[in-house]
Amino acid sequence: MTTKTHFQAVNAFDGTLLPGDFPVHGKSDVDQAAKAAAGVARFFRQTSDHSRAELLRCIAAQLELQQDAIVERAHLETALPHARLNGELARTTHQLHLFAEVVIAGHWHQVIMDTPDSQRQPQPKPDIRRQQVALGPVAVFGASNFPLAFSTAGGDTASALAAGCPVIVKGHTAHPGTSAMVAECIHRALEEKNLPHEIFTLLQGVERELGQSLVSHPAIKAVGFTGSVAGGRALFNLAQQRPEPIPFYGELGAINPTFLLPAALESNPELAQQFVQSMTLGCGQFCTKPGVVFVLNSPQSQAFIETAQTLIRRQPSVTLLTQGIADSYRQYTTQRAADPSLSVCTTPEAATDIAPMLFVTSAQQWQQNPQWEEEIFGPQSMIVVCDSTKEMLTLAQSLTGSLTATLHAAEADFPLAAQLLSRLEELAGRIVFNGWPTGVEVGYAMVHGGPYPASTQSASTSVGAEAIHRWLRPVAYQSLPDALLPEALQSDNPLALVRQVDGHFD
Amino acid sequence: MTTKTHFQAVNAFDGTLLPGDFPVHGKSDVDQAAKAAAGVARFFRQTSDHSRAELLRCIAAQLELQQDAIVERAHLETALPHARLNGELARTTHQLHLFAEVVIAGHWHQVIMDTPDSQRQPQPKPDIRRQQVALGPVAVFGASNFPLAFSTAGGDTASALAAGCPVIVKGHTAHPGTSAMVAECIHRALEEKNLPHEIFTLLQGVERELGQSLVSHPAIKAVGFTGSVAGGRALFNLAQQRPEPIPFYGELGAINPTFLLPAALESNPELAQQFVQSMTLGCGQFCTKPGVVFVLNSPQSQAFIETAQTLIRRQPSVTLLTQGIADSYRQYTTQRAADPSLSVCTTPEAATDIAPMLFVTSAQQWQQNPQWEEEIFGPQSMIVVCDSTKEMLTLAQSLTGSLTATLHAAEADFPLAAQLLSRLEELAGRIVFNGWPTGVEVGYAMVHGGPYPASTQSASTSVGAEAIHRWLRPVAYQSLPDALLPEALQSDNPLALVRQVDGHFD
Repeated sequence: MTTKTHFQAVNAFDGTLLPGDFPVHGKSDVDQAAKAAAGVARFFRQTSDHSRAELLRCIAAQLELQQDAIVERAHLETALPHARLNGELARTTHQLHLFAEVVIAGHWHQVIMDTPDSQRQPQPKPDIRRQQVALGPVAVFGASNFPLAFSTAGGDTASALAAGCPVIVKGHTAHPGTSAMVAECIHRALEEKNLPHEIFTLLQGVERELGQSLVSHPAIKAVGFTGSVAGGRALFNLAQQRPEPIPFYGELGAINPTFLLPAALESNPELAQQFVQSMTLGCGQFCTKPGVVFVLNSPQSQAFIETAQTLIRRQPSVTLLTQGIADSYRQYTTQRAADPSLSVCTTPEAATDIAPMLFVTSAQQWQQNPQWEEEIFGPQSMIVVCDSTKEMLTLAQSLTGSLTATLHAAEADFPLAAQLLSRLEELAGRIVFNGWPTGVEVGYAMVHGGPYPASTQSASTSVGAEAIHRWLRPVAYQSLPDALLPEALQSDNPLALVRQVDGHFD
Repeated sequence: MTTKTHFQAVNAFDGTLLPGDFPVHGKSDVDQAAKAAAGVARFFRQTSDHSRAELLRCIAAQLELQQDAIVERAHLETALPHARLNGELARTTHQLHLFAEVVIAGHWHQVIMDTPDSQRQPQPKPDIRRQQVALGPVAVFGASNFPLAFSTAGGDTASALAAGCPVIVKGHTAHPGTSAMVAECIHRALEEKNLPHEIFTLLQGVERELGQSLVSHPAIKAVGFTGSVAGGRALFNLAQQRPEPIPFYGELGAINPTFLLPAALESNPELAQQFVQSMTLGCGQFCTKPGVVFVLNSPQSQAFIETAQTLIRRQPSVTLLTQGIADSYRQYTTQRAADPSLSVCTTPEAATDIAPMLFVTSAQQWQQNPQWEEEIFGPQSMIVVCDSTKEMLTLAQSLTGSLTATLHAAEADFPLAAQLLSRLEELAGRIVFNGWPTGVEVGYAMVHGGPYPASTQSASTSVGAEAIHRWLRPVAYQSLPDALLPEALQSDNPLALVRQVDGHFD
C-alpha cells in the first residue's frame, strides 16, 4: 500500500473531481513548516505595527485582484452562490482592513503602568509596565462553511498576523483550490512587503493525522479552529494533553435559541418570514442559525407556526457544502421525522439535494429529549411550544452554551424579557434583540463565542477586533530603563498609545 | 475500615498535633457547596459594584480584627515568623482593598460599543455593546507557602468575589486552622453586608478526592490554583476532560532564571548578598525564588560565586513549611550534592531543619542535565558559568516558561541585555531589571504568570488588578433598548465608565 501524494477537489454540485492536484502534506511537512515559523517568530513579533498593518492591507488588495477567479473556484467547491461568495470576500478584506486599523490604533498593546515610589513604606514601590506580546506560531483550521471569511485568510489568520504570530493554516478538504489561491495571495503580499515567506504556510491533506500533528507540534503556541463539536473536541483534547498545553480557541457548535414573546408575535407579522429566511440562509449552514425557537401557546404563536410551515413547504431543495454534511443532515432529520413526538414539515427532496425541514414540539417533549439540543448543520429548525412563562424560563435554564441567544419582545413583554435576559447572558456570547442571529458583524464590540460548546474558551471571541487577544499574553517589565523598554512602554509614549497609569486611563 | 471524619493540624516546628478538629469534607459536601453556590451565582453577579467593593473592604476589616490570633495560628502551622505573617496579612488586606478599587473604577467591565448606522450598504450596521459578565462559582485551592495572601482570602478569592463569582476554597492541609479562622472572617463580612453565606464556602480535608470532585463538579465554572507542577497538572487535566471544560488558572512552577552581566557584576559589589537574601527569603519557599543564575566566566563572577558561597555557609538551617516539603528538599538536594558535575556548598544541618545549599556548574553540564531546570522548593539555587555570551544566549534560548526572568546590567552591558530581553519576554511573565524577583508587587500592572509551567494560562495573571479577568467572559448585546441593557452599557453611562466607542476611548 502506498500513501497518496496528491488529492483533488470535489465539485459540490455533482461529486465529480475538479481540475488541480493538491499535495497531501504529512507529519514531516508539519515539522518543517512549524520549525520555519518558529524561526521567524521573533522577527515577526518585533516588526513595527505599521509594517504588519501594511501586510494585512496588501493581502486584502491581492484578494481583490484575484476575486473573480477565487469566487468561481469557491462556487464549484462549495455550491455557495456567487453573490454570497462575493459578499464573503468583501467581508474577508474588511476583516483584514479592520485588523490593520486595530494594529495601528494600538489598544491591543494593553499598556498598564504603575509609577514607582521610592519613599513608600515598608518597601519602595517599583516601576512596573505591562504590555502584550505575541505567543508565537499559530495553527489555524479552515472551516467548510466560510471558505473565505473563516478559512485561509479569514479572521483567525488576520488576527494572528495582526498580533505578530506566524500562521500555519490547515486547509479544509472541501475547498483546497480556494485555499491554495488565497494562500498565493498571502505569499505575494509577504513578498511585496519584503517579509519572510515562512510567516505563512498552507498545509493541505485528507488525513486526520495532519491536523493532529499540527496541534501537537511543540513549536505551535496556539490554535484557532471553527468546526464540529466532535472534531474540535478531539483536537482540543490533544492541545491540552501536550507536555506544554496551549490555548485552543475552538468555535464548535451552537443551537442559538430564540424566544418569541407574545406581544412581539402580535405586533410583528413578519416574524415567520424572517425566521425561515434566517434558518435557511447559506442553506442553514451558518453557525448562528436559529436552531430552536421557543413560543408560548397562543393563537398568535399558532399562526406563526402555520406561516413558517407554509414558507418551508415553498423552499427549494438545496445542495449542501459536502456530501458528508448532506449525509449527516439526512440521517439526523430522518430520525427526527420518524419521531412521533415531533410534527414535521418539509419540502420535496430533489435528486442529490436535501430538503429544508421544520419540526414542532411541546416543551414537555423538548425536556425529555436532550439530544435535540445537538446542532444539525443544514436548513432545519425546531419550534417548541411552552404552556406558560414558567415553563419557558425553566427551559431557558436548562439550555447549554450557544454563540447567540435571540429575544423578540415588544414593550408589554419587557418584564418577561428581563427575566430571560438574566439567563441568556449566562449561556450565550451574543444576545440579539428583535433581530436574527445570522450575520455576524465584524466590528469592535462583536463577541462570537460563548460557553462550551459554542467556544472552548468562553472568554474569547473569534470575530471582531478583540479576536487579536487570543494570540497575545501579557509581560510586565520591572524597573527597566527607557533604552531597553519596548516602544509601547517608553516614558515619552512614542506610539501615542492610550495607556492606563496607576489605575486611570491617561 | 471507617473513613476519618475529622483531622488535626500539625505543628510545623515539632510535628505534634495542634488543638482543633477540622471536618474531612467529601464528595457530598462538594456537591452541596457547589449547588448552593450556583443557587446564589446570578444574584451575586448582579449585585452592584458598590456592594461587592464594600464586601471586600469588610473582609479586610474582619481580618485586621483577628490579626493577632490568625498570625499566631499561622505561625504554628507554617513555621513562618510573625513579622513575615503580619506582612502577609497586610498584603492580603491590601489586595482586598485593591480589588474594591478595581470594582468601583469599573475598567473591568471592558465596555466596547459599536454605534449603529441604518444607512450603511449593503446592510445596516447594528448597535452592538459588549461588557464582561461573571462566570459563576469558582474553586480556589489554597497554597502552602502563603497561608494568607494565596489562600482562603487571598488573591484568587478576592478577585473572584470582585468579579461577582461565588467562591469555594479547598483549604491547604498544611494550615487548616488558619483557613478556618479566615473563612470565619469572610462569613462575618457576608453577614454584616446582608449577603447570602453560600457566596463563600471553605472545604477542608486530607484526601486528593476532595479537590478532584471540586474541579469535576458541573456547577464549578473556573479554578484558581497555586502549587506544584504534579498536583496542578493533574487537576488541570481533570478540568479539561470534563464534558464542559473550564478554565483552570494554575500557577505551577518556575525556576526564575537570573542573568548577571559583566559590567553589572563589576559595578555592584552587593550582588552576591542580594542574591543569597533573595534565594533564602521565606526559607526559599517563594515561587519567584531565583533558582538559577547565569554568569560569564570572569574574575568578577568568580568573586561573586565565592562571596555567595561564604554567605551560604553562614546561613542558619531552617524549618520548612511541612515535613513533606522538607523530605522532598532533602531528596533532591542529596541527589544533586552527589553529582560530580556540580560543586556544592552548604551549611550544617540541624536536627529537623534543612540546610540552605548553593550549586555551581558549567554551561556545558547545565545543557546535559535538563532535570536541573525542575523547581526545588526550599533555599537552594544554582550558578551556571558560561564561557561566552553566545553560550549564555544559547542557554537562554532553551529555558522553559517561568514566572520571572531577571537581568542585572550596567550601561556597557546594554547590547547583550537587549539580545537577552528579546528572549526573556518569550519565556517569562515578568522581567526584573537590576533587582530580584522575590516580592511580587500587588498593583495594576503586575503579571504573575508566564508560559507553562509557570502558568497553565499564560494570558492571565494571578496577582494584581488584571487577575479579575480570569473570572469573566464577554457578552455582546445587539440592538437592546436602554430599558433592558445592563447599567454599564446604557446610553447615558450611569456608571461613568471609560468606554471604547467605535474603536476610540471616549
